[in-house]
Amino acid sequence: MTQLNDALEGRLTAEMAAVAEHEGLPAETVREGVAGGRVVIPKNVKRRFAPMGIGEGLFTKVNANIGTSPSHHDLREELRKLKVCVDAGAHAVMDLSIGGDLREIRREILAESPVMVGAVPIYGVAVGLERAGKSIESMSSNELFDEIERQCEEGIDFITVHCGVTRKVLDELAQQPRVLGIVSRGGSLLARWMAANRAENPLFAEYDRLLAIARRYDATLSLGDGLRPGSVLDASDRAQIGELRVLGELRERAYAAGVQVMIEGPGHVPLNQIVESIATEKRLCNGAPFYVLGPLPTDTAAGYDHIAAAIGGAIAAAAGADFLCYVTAAEHLRLPTVEEVREGVVAARIAGHCADIVKLGERALARDRRMSEARAGLDWNGMFANALDGVLARHKRSESEDADRTVCTMCGDLCAIRSFEIYKQSENR
Amino acid sequence: MTQLNDALEGRLTAEMAAVAEHEGLPAETVREGVAGGRVVIPKNVKRRFAPMGIGEGLFTKVNANIGTSPSHHDLREELRKLKVCVDAGAHAVMDLSIGGDLREIRREILAESPVMVGAVPIYGVAVGLERAGKSIESMSSNELFDEIERQCEEGIDFITVHCGVTRKVLDELAQQPRVLGIVSRGGSLLARWMAANRAENPLFAEYDRLLAIARRYDATLSLGDGLRPGSVLDASDRAQIGELRVLGELRERAYAAGVQVMIEGPGHVPLNQIVESIATEKRLCNGAPFYVLGPLPTDTAAGYDHIAAAIGGAIAAAAGADFLCYVTAAEHLRLPTVEEVREGVVAARIAGHCADIVKLGERALARDRRMSEARAGLDWNGMFANALDGVLARHKRSESEDADRTVCTMCGDLCAIRSFEIYKQSENR
Repeated sequence: MTQLNDALEGRLTAEMAAVAEHEGLPAETVREGVAGGRVVIPKNVKRRFAPMGIGEGLFTKVNANIGTSPSHHDLREELRKLKVCVDAGAHAVMDLSIGGDLREIRREILAESPVMVGAVPIYGVAVGLERAGKSIESMSSNELFDEIERQCEEGIDFITVHCGVTRKVLDELAQQPRVLGIVSRGGSLLARWMAANRAENPLFAEYDRLLAIARRYDATLSLGDGLRPGSVLDASDRAQIGELRVLGELRERAYAAGVQVMIEGPGHVPLNQIVESIATEKRLCNGAPFYVLGPLPTDTAAGYDHIAAAIGGAIAAAAGADFLCYVTAAEHLRLPTVEEVREGVVAARIAGHCADIVKLGERALARDRRMSEARAGLDWNGMFANALDGVLARHKRSESEDADRTVCTMCGDLCAIRSFEIYKQSENR
Repeated sequence: MTQLNDALEGRLTAEMAAVAEHEGLPAETVREGVAGGRVVIPKNVKRRFAPMGIGEGLFTKVNANIGTSPSHHDLREELRKLKVCVDAGAHAVMDLSIGGDLREIRREILAESPVMVGAVPIYGVAVGLERAGKSIESMSSNELFDEIERQCEEGIDFITVHCGVTRKVLDELAQQPRVLGIVSRGGSLLARWMAANRAENPLFAEYDRLLAIARRYDATLSLGDGLRPGSVLDASDRAQIGELRVLGELRERAYAAGVQVMIEGPGHVPLNQIVESIATEKRLCNGAPFYVLGPLPTDTAAGYDHIAAAIGGAIAAAAGADFLCYVTAAEHLRLPTVEEVREGVVAARIAGHCADIVKLGERALARDRRMSEARAGLDWNGMFANALDGVLARHKRSESEDADRTVCTMCGDLCAIRSFEIYKQSENR
């Protein structure tokens, strides 16, 4: 029994109640969102944690990708990253490990995480084959589905599955070539398999098999965008929209099967195409929650892609994106450090909050109101309490010469807040 | 003779030619922009450096505020900040010093700076009075205009003058109270003076005197927004729009006097009000260049306001803002460190570049094209050459275990770029 089944049959689950509590909404509103497929509550039936909802009418949520690579793998570092993500306010983490003991890493992250955990099962298959001296081209569809089932059995709450990389969509890619063809790891692995085997994507061809597994564990499907643009020059092209159309159809089949589903989106998108790209997803996928990676409105911000992603993410979320996958300052260069992970989460939360002010009004704005009231009173503890990262704000101020005064080193005694008070007294005398 | 006079009389100056060269535009296009008051070239007649244009049809420019405070002043640190700004790609710096020997600091910055330098003359007056044991309320209008003339004589290229803080505008502020009344240092000082002296703002009352000084040195006036909102809750209110109306009228008088002028703008603005706020400025000020501080789409990002400002700045610039004043991670907490200055400049350049892709098309996009072509070829030196901060990008990669390979530690041998090549070979065999 999935959250979607319960919602459709009018049952309010404990998970819906918890989401409603967190959001400050009636539980019935959350149930309606889930029943309509516009809200998902990713939570594997095997797991116990305080769930979050993702979708229309809810606060924008943030996911942080962690995980190892062959040349950089240390379980303790991943667990430190997990803790930093959660402390910084991430609502989800994805374990994208491809180095070290993948099962052990996943098991530990699942055991430690107080937030939902996602994964991309095909990575595990690819790594297993590589270690056995084989290539992804030799994968059997059973190997892929067995890995998916194993990860769901372990408790993964949502899985990225690139079901929309079909032969037809790859034809569309060939017709309208790109600067950067395929930049999705999972998407490129499936394309290799499909080309070598002259066969359809097993995640598409045997989609019902995938639905049966997901339903059994109430694992939310995150329909991956294997053809997402990797350059602003490639955005919104035939292949990307073609894949999104397929995802819209697959969403319909998942919904009919009682499986929770969200849609993944770009990627690299020029600033003036972001709003349209969100609208297109919502239209083609019947309002399904939209999970975006970035988007990055430029390709040139290497070293600062968390900032480029905050720009794109804020615009995307204000236009209706529901779930922001963080991007770190290390993107396009290497795996992030623990500190880059922390900064990446906060940058995405800032983007989400700027958007929530637009989407949710006072429910989000209340925090800005308290912050600005604290500023008006030069109440520094009030400011730290309402800052999205009060720990860092307090630390930065503590480093300054004026830390024990009411003013700061920016203006000293020419503080505008103080001058305004003097002005008001003078004006009213 | 000012650039505006020359442009109106059809003369192409060396400055216009230099701007045209940098922008990749015909010099005549630049002259037309200046003649129409839609482009300014801030460059005091006393100074020699390669000038930049600011305004319609040109690349978005970035200003970095540096300067001391009473409890934190070190000339060498300011000169280090200046160098870091220029190296990071700032097109202008403003010296906002209020601590130490203000004239010496200004003189050194003017002597060292290869980019335009701005200042806010009223700060010098306020500091001088404070040191003499007097308050801003005792200022005479002669003291203010003498300081303005002195700074123009020293070579300042553009000055912020809060001419629009009129008695009528302050009445409007009183009618519709704010969470945070006045957050502009200069604006709040003038308001104090006006209330205590029951008199009109001298910069407004004696505006012709200001114009005469600016014309003599071709100092560009940056008409300050003393009533800019300091909270997203205060944005776009009666006082802000009232002041902007006044600035529009003052722009007209400056233009008629042959004085180059730009308009300063907010501030803290919710994401969905940014586009309208730019359009309002352009309409009320007849297309004058718009110089924005942020805007910050949330009040809660203390410690990360460079990221909040990048979000707002990108949207603002894409909608027509011409000049972004950077905001650093120290904003609202203390003066920035040298490193925060550097990050702030790059964050604003990222915002400007994301916007330029929209405003200028291929002129800006060419860089993203080269970057993505380098990515497609796993050409790391090509990536570093086209990154907005190639030095940091190279450094981040150099820290990783895979720095001497073609792939990176994100994906290792599962690199999507490599998989895509294998896919293409397989598909075409």
